[in-house]
Amino acid sequence: MHLLSLSNHFIFGFLIFCLILMASSGVYADNNSTPSVNQTTQINLARSSMKVKGFSDPEMDFQLMRSIGTDWYGGGILGEILLAASEITDGDPSNWPKSFAQLGMQVEKDGRERLAKGHVVSARDALMRASNYYRAAEYYADPRLPEHQEFGLKAHTCFIDGINLFDWRVDVLQIPYQDSFLPGYFLSPDKDTNQITRKTILIMSGYDGTSEEIFFGAGRAALERGYNILLFDGPGQVGALRFHPHMAFIPDYSQPITAVVDYALKRKDVDPKRLALYGISLGGYFAASGAITEKRIKALILNSPIVDIHEYLLASGLSQLENMTEDLRLEDFDYIPDEEMNPKYKISLWNMCTRFGQSSVFALLEHLKEFNISGLLNKITIPTLAMVGEGEGKIPLKQAQYCVDHVTGPATLYIFDIQSGADSHCQMNNSPLSNAVLYDWLDEIFDKQ
Amino acid sequence: MHLLSLSNHFIFGFLIFCLILMASSGVYADNNSTPSVNQTTQINLARSSMKVKGFSDPEMDFQLMRSIGTDWYGGGILGEILLAASEITDGDPSNWPKSFAQLGMQVEKDGRERLAKGHVVSARDALMRASNYYRAAEYYADPRLPEHQEFGLKAHTCFIDGINLFDWRVDVLQIPYQDSFLPGYFLSPDKDTNQITRKTILIMSGYDGTSEEIFFGAGRAALERGYNILLFDGPGQVGALRFHPHMAFIPDYSQPITAVVDYALKRKDVDPKRLALYGISLGGYFAASGAITEKRIKALILNSPIVDIHEYLLASGLSQLENMTEDLRLEDFDYIPDEEMNPKYKISLWNMCTRFGQSSVFALLEHLKEFNISGLLNKITIPTLAMVGEGEGKIPLKQAQYCVDHVTGPATLYIFDIQSGADSHCQMNNSPLSNAVLYDWLDEIFDKQ
Repeated sequence: MHLLSLSNHFIFGFLIFCLILMASSGVYADNNSTPSVNQTTQINLARSSMKVKGFSDPEMDFQLMRSIGTDWYGGGILGEILLAASEITDGDPSNWPKSFAQLGMQVEKDGRERLAKGHVVSARDALMRASNYYRAAEYYADPRLPEHQEFGLKAHTCFIDGINLFDWRVDVLQIPYQDSFLPGYFLSPDKDTNQITRKTILIMSGYDGTSEEIFFGAGRAALERGYNILLFDGPGQVGALRFHPHMAFIPDYSQPITAVVDYALKRKDVDPKRLALYGISLGGYFAASGAITEKRIKALILNSPIVDIHEYLLASGLSQLENMTEDLRLEDFDYIPDEEMNPKYKISLWNMCTRFGQSSVFALLEHLKEFNISGLLNKITIPTLAMVGEGEGKIPLKQAQYCVDHVTGPATLYIFDIQSGADSHCQMNNSPLSNAVLYDWLDEIFDKQ
Repeated sequence: MHLLSLSNHFIFGFLIFCLILMASSGVYADNNSTPSVNQTTQINLARSSMKVKGFSDPEMDFQLMRSIGTDWYGGGILGEILLAASEITDGDPSNWPKSFAQLGMQVEKDGRERLAKGHVVSARDALMRASNYYRAAEYYADPRLPEHQEFGLKAHTCFIDGINLFDWRVDVLQIPYQDSFLPGYFLSPDKDTNQITRKTILIMSGYDGTSEEIFFGAGRAALERGYNILLFDGPGQVGALRFHPHMAFIPDYSQPITAVVDYALKRKDVDPKRLALYGISLGGYFAASGAITEKRIKALILNSPIVDIHEYLLASGLSQLENMTEDLRLEDFDYIPDEEMNPKYKISLWNMCTRFGQSSVFALLEHLKEFNISGLLNKITIPTLAMVGEGEGKIPLKQAQYCVDHVTGPATLYIFDIQSGADSHCQMNNSPLSNAVLYDWLDEIFDKQ
């Protein structure tokens, strides 16, 4: 039967049907419009009240990707993250901290209630997500307000309470450093003993990451592969700020790295011959800086390798600050009306001055020049893996190439191209591939020994 | 210093700076426009070439959510899925199978290469993702073309090759059923023995899900909680179609369920006192149908409970078909010009007739009326958990309520509201919460025994 033989009536019914029938091999209505949250309960049959939706604001979109990207290792789940994001105005992250903190509280409460009933797996799954939701809240929180520290400490607490429900050995650390300490975590696949000597990787994040977050990004992947992991927050890093608000970034990271190595090598369960150091984001600078002098590290991973923070940060647009004719001091910020300067930029700039321990913008710009190890790379003599994403831009790619060209030890450059689905900064959109590249490389080095 | 005291020159520089400075507590440029894939390498510093982006087409958006939703349990990763999605036209899924199959091939190749080098964890992570990418390709593939089966078998093969690299016992099943078999998997937390008797859950999917997919949705969560799992595909289901293209859905599922229970109870490692059955999506009908007669099942979970498939499917828009004045037979479909009927609808309708074993649309509509267990629910005497999402629409909510009102055993209705971030069909956007609800309930029942 050819369609032309069908009656008009039939064709008419058919066209109506075409407009509304299920849109796929599935069986659901395609209404050609997405129901809003409150509409779906009025529809007879639907898929979801929720949509996959990002932000047109690139930074907010990346932060959303960063959150969803941790799902693989248990740092969040799509539906909850999209729910929180749906309550935030595109381009204006002022409501972001509240939205993600509320989500954190909701999921933390659920986890603690399940734990009280003895449901360990459900509880840990929730507490780990809650930890990373508080971290997301901390990210956009105003560092001048108490809630910034509050969210950070909640991320810390939920993480500890969650991770202790897994079958890993967990030691929460205060690593002695000068007159103070660096916070961190040591985890081992061996819950009930510290007598088994294992490969160990020390992992640090960068400008805005934390120990808890890098557990999801890189730590859990190492545990799955039989490594011990030591996650730590060095001077100036967000995880350290919670305890030491005035401890700033320093250009020479040899002392903090040596403090961490000192601690690691005191442990019986750490194999000193198979000790690696991994720096993520700006951690790619700090880890390299430490490896210049700290010779007990046997392999180095930089994601990405940053050899000149001044050039790197100025590439973000900071270079425009050099055109200012007058300096801007920390105490001036409170007097800048929001109409003159978008609060999100004001917070960012104030934050950066503070994090680098500088009292004004000009001082910051001058100080950043000290964060340069381009002339010292030849002192890195251990195997080095340089990881960088094609989507990170010209400067990271250039500095990564410079790094592998100038270290003395064998160096491997791995560029995550666009077709890998992993070309974002730190491969935050594809941690399993990132970790496959990293740990396969590291296993091949350590297994030779 | 008040801003008003700043020179005009300074303010001018400031405004430029405001436009381009980092958008957050982070350090990255906010260009207020998202770079396209090829632009990012021309930018000095960027976050990603990729955006979080869904489809305005509700069904395609849900399918995207379904894929990303499996990240938590290892069925995909955000960056790869968004990459595949970026190559598909919104509203036109004709390129979907190719895009996801290409991704599947890329990730499978990566996994097999890593396996050849002995990198077991990296290999299994990739093969599991590849399996679920092939499943996504299968979903929108034209079931009349060989590629539909090809993608399905690749999903099957990658799954087997991946899952055998975990520390679980894996038995790939051909469960005897009539003169044929039902495909499935038995997995146990005990890799090296089958002498430990454990709680066991039998899990089935619905209209378009597969055993492999429900491993990610519900199976792995059970293994983590110490259950054996038996995943299976019954008559008419996609996982069974790969082997039995002409085996259709049947209204009374007691025989297939009994076949599966027969197999399970022959195993020494299955505790017959703690045997549960879980049906997902249309599996909420089939599992309930089986539980009406199969009395060896001790607990039943329906997500969602479907008691009348005719009403359920007609709510999707199929009811318009009843207005047709002439029937449409399977052999007519090839003669309908694409201009008269969108190919995606044509495929859907042809597929539904075939899947239900009917030769025409009128026959389908009549046949669906047989899929009704509303008068038999009183024969379900075991504890029953009814799960449904607020975002699924009125009919699923109504049928879920009807189910708990009419079964004889103790019944619990759990509605995932919008604020749970889990209100999608089958909680595909929030599997950890879905599984917490399910397994905490089930643990409490089985632990009483």
